[in-house]
Amino acid sequence: MAELTHGGDVYSLAEEYAGPILDFSANINPLGLPERVRRAAGASLADCARYPDPLCRGLRKALGERLGLGPELILCGNGAADLIFRMALALRPRRGLIPAPTFSEYARALEAAGCRTETHFLREEDEFRVTGDLLERLEPGLDILCLCSPNNPTGWPVEPALLEEILLRCRENGTAILLDECFVSFLDQPERYTMVPRLREFPNLVILRAFTKLYAMAGLRLGFCLSADAALLEEMSRRGQPWGVSIPAQAAGIAALGEAEYLRRTRELIPRERAFLREGLEGLGFPVVGSRANYLFFRGPDGALARRLRPMGILLRDCGNYPGLGPGWYRAAVRAREENAAFLAALKKVKEGKG
Amino acid sequence: MAELTHGGDVYSLAEEYAGPILDFSANINPLGLPERVRRAAGASLADCARYPDPLCRGLRKALGERLGLGPELILCGNGAADLIFRMALALRPRRGLIPAPTFSEYARALEAAGCRTETHFLREEDEFRVTGDLLERLEPGLDILCLCSPNNPTGWPVEPALLEEILLRCRENGTAILLDECFVSFLDQPERYTMVPRLREFPNLVILRAFTKLYAMAGLRLGFCLSADAALLEEMSRRGQPWGVSIPAQAAGIAALGEAEYLRRTRELIPRERAFLREGLEGLGFPVVGSRANYLFFRGPDGALARRLRPMGILLRDCGNYPGLGPGWYRAAVRAREENAAFLAALKKVKEGKG
Repeated sequence: MAELTHGGDVYSLAEEYAGPILDFSANINPLGLPERVRRAAGASLADCARYPDPLCRGLRKALGERLGLGPELILCGNGAADLIFRMALALRPRRGLIPAPTFSEYARALEAAGCRTETHFLREEDEFRVTGDLLERLEPGLDILCLCSPNNPTGWPVEPALLEEILLRCRENGTAILLDECFVSFLDQPERYTMVPRLREFPNLVILRAFTKLYAMAGLRLGFCLSADAALLEEMSRRGQPWGVSIPAQAAGIAALGEAEYLRRTRELIPRERAFLREGLEGLGFPVVGSRANYLFFRGPDGALARRLRPMGILLRDCGNYPGLGPGWYRAAVRAREENAAFLAALKKVKEGKG
Repeated sequence: MAELTHGGDVYSLAEEYAGPILDFSANINPLGLPERVRRAAGASLADCARYPDPLCRGLRKALGERLGLGPELILCGNGAADLIFRMALALRPRRGLIPAPTFSEYARALEAAGCRTETHFLREEDEFRVTGDLLERLEPGLDILCLCSPNNPTGWPVEPALLEEILLRCRENGTAILLDECFVSFLDQPERYTMVPRLREFPNLVILRAFTKLYAMAGLRLGFCLSADAALLEEMSRRGQPWGVSIPAQAAGIAALGEAEYLRRTRELIPRERAFLREGLEGLGFPVVGSRANYLFFRGPDGALARRLRPMGILLRDCGNYPGLGPGWYRAAVRAREENAAFLAALKKVKEGKG
């Protein structure tokens, strides 16, 4: 089984390292699962002899109220990744375009749906930003564009003016867009970058969001997507099992939407710790690129950094296997101060050859 | 959204009926979620900021020990239904054969994979049993056969000698078999009907099992499948997201495997209550067919029985929408004595026109 190329695989490291593990490889809110969410998920276990509600009625209603959208524009999934596969299977695109580097599940999902995927390589001299060059690739006959903003692993959001041009071009051409906003809440100005308020203008747009990262509930699996094309969402709901979202995940999601204070603390912690980590990395001579979300994208001294941190119980995402990148690129999650300091100290040791 | 054709939809009934609901429409162990399983799932919530182990290593090891199989022959999924879709997407069959009536997700999954599905209609004069007639449909060029034993909704298992002939014919022809044994543990002699001990003889065989029904954890979503074709399982793991099985589901599964006493009580309760329900239904003049598992398949007075039970807070599976059946066929889960008695009393009321 070959599914261990992503971050967050503490399980493999636990087989070789007995102590506590510092996981910088998964981009998850360092505040951890909110206590209210844990309690709601725990209480819901009493109902788990039942099947989950296939329509996630309670959760979609709560989400709709939060976002100012009708529940018919919302589809929930077993994590955002579930929805990527459902979208690919519902649309059955023949030609898809994906920038590189980016999250690898888009390409896997399009491939699973039998779609031929073209790659738009972002350039190192642009710091791997999406630029106007992408517009030239948007031609009639392109069935789907997958765009991650802020991008994973670079942490660059697509600039709003450019994103609007992209959306317009795609609407003209009949190209569907999967816009992955799973990390948008970690930007300093999410409202400047999210396309949720523009949803109704672009029926070809599907916006992807996750509870996974923002509410640190990756183990519970919950994501959702938004589209003005309710028929597409219905088709997506049919392109997989009806009971994808578990009862604890639905309960956790509803509870998470009540977490105002947790979000306030998150919005305070992330920029502060991101700046601390950036300064530390640059101080070690590791150039940081992009990195506007809750993870730092940087260039290490060589391709062996992640491997050398493992015996110290630290997981770092080696980005060498992303198409469009090569050895020496890394992604580190923004965590709490103590962990970030330990991470920087470990990097220093490795750099000085003492790791 | 049109995903409400299955049993277990207590959520719709709750919108129109305020009292406690008796759910006879979902075939779930009436003993409910074992307390040890609930506790294990609850304790695992503390780890849920992490991603789940995509390889389900702990669970597959425990399952492998229980079944006497190497973990490489086991793939876990987000409920059995997840694995049906993954198998269809991994094999990409062009021609599939499915008996009718049966569980509808096989046809939905094959359709999602672009497969042309043929139906083998089981005959009412055979009480909808799978007979030797099926062998005549097994010809070269058939890519997949989906077989549910015991069948849902009839509760008939495929007789072992016939099943062996079917497996041999399919092996000869290069036809893959999805053998759904999700209800096999509720038969009086599971060991007589399961093909798990024969797994290695038939590399074209995938056996599907669920924790959902046996351990009453439908809301947690956990199923698994077994095959001697480890490469197919690996392909299935790629035909969907890597993190399909949540952390609580993995923890619950491991705990469930330690539930010997719960299984003993289940094996005592099901035959006793099945006989009680059968007698009651036949006493009302409703002929029972098949029904060797934890559900009763019977013919009601007309097609309105399920609808008339709803105002009494009782959910019954109306099988009128199964291909191969028509109005008047119903499926009722075997539940605990008090509920079964209440169910029979309600049926009596409806029959006497007092419902």
